[in-house]
Amino acid sequence: MPYVNIKITREGATAVQKARLIAGVTELLREVLGKNPATTMVVIDEVETDNWGIGGETVTTRRARGS
Amino acid sequence: MPYVNIKITREGATAVQKARLIAGVTELLREVLGKNPATTMVVIDEVETDNWGIGGETVTTRRARGS
Amino acid sequence: MPYVNIKITREGATAVQKARLIAGVTELLREVLGKNPATTMVVIDEVETDNWGIGGETVTTRRARGS
Amino acid sequence: MPYVNIKITREGATAVQKARLIAGVTELLREVLGKNPATTMVVIDEVETDNWGIGGETVTTRRARGS
Amino acid sequence: MPYVNIKITREGATAVQKARLIAGVTELLREVLGKNPATTMVVIDEVETDNWGIGGETVTTRRARGS
Amino acid sequence: MPYVNIKITREGATAVQKARLIAGVTELLREVLGKNPATTMVVIDEVETDNWGIGGETVTTRRARGS
Repeated sequence: MPYVNIKITREGATAVQKARLIAGVTELLREVLGKNPATTMVVIDEVETDNWGIGGETVTTRRARGS
Repeated sequence: MPYVNIKITREGATAVQKARLIAGVTELLREVLGKNPATTMVVIDEVETDNWGIGGETVTTRRARGS
Repeated sequence: MPYVNIKITREGATAVQKARLIAGVTELLREVLGKNPATTMVVIDEVETDNWGIGGETVTTRRARGS
Repeated sequence: MPYVNIKITREGATAVQKARLIAGVTELLREVLGKNPATTMVVIDEVETDNWGIGGETVTTRRARGS
Repeated sequence: MPYVNIKITREGATAVQKARLIAGVTELLREVLGKNPATTMVVIDEVETDNWGIGGETVTTRRARGS
Repeated sequence: MPYVNIKITREGATAVQKARLIAGVTELLREVLGKNPATTMVVIDEVETDNWGIGGETVTTRRARGS
């Protein structure tokens, strides 16, 4: 009964891509630890680039610089 | 001074229902562990059904199938 | 299929008390939002008092002062 | 490589203020623990006042009362 | 620069299994969303079975019943 | 009433250093957003290096290589 939380920046991930993340991580937990997919829960949070920081600056600032 | 995070799918919970969750869990912590309500914090996250997975698929897909 | 995370200081909560928290919050979500207990997940984190701060100081410091 | 999550109520924090939080907490971790800013990640969640509770009631209710 | 948190019950996952989870979820994010592995962070929390609930009861209780 | 969660690897942070993190982040929120220190909560999680991954490998592996 694992719980997985995936946080990514909100930059256009599609419903299909998010479904692939959910299927993939559920399968990974089954394969590596034998966890039952029926009770594996996955929550994806999409975070505005103004609200995500790395290296002491926001992702908005990094994207503006081309990083 | 407990901190509680409740994650539910975004499917129309009303302000009144959310207030009942907050009151209820605060009272539960007072009753079971004697925690002071004044410093009990509760945060509710409502998550899109595309972003929540169980059983390896999204809640959107399950709802479409009638689960 | 809600997910609930309860964080409390590690100050001797018993297995019975933790089981009451789990049962209580699961029932609250069924009662208020009609959520299915079978897929309601609750995780309790017990945090050392050195690692929990409120009012700008650790709980260890507050407890030593009698707060 | 610390990870920091800051949750605040959604009440008008500006992009500049959020950038200051990110810069400030990254610098704090460098100063206190020598953590490398390049791999310090900060995520800010802004939470609706209906979804945040303290003292057993929502922040919406408290704000309406003038607290 | 995704951040992934995996919560599992503390029931003997080995260092090798945890390394496989980390490698696997990092690769999944690269494959599905093109995320850079160098800044993908994964944190695994192992939770005591007394502290994990599903179906309104602790995993300890479920394991004792043979579930 | 902000809530801050700081995750670091468990590599010997002292009680004094953790108290400085708590004081520092509480002051930062007061300074930048005018948040009341009395209801600012900070939780520090110290995570085993086997349980923390970056770049697709555990911190244990990176430390062994001298990174």
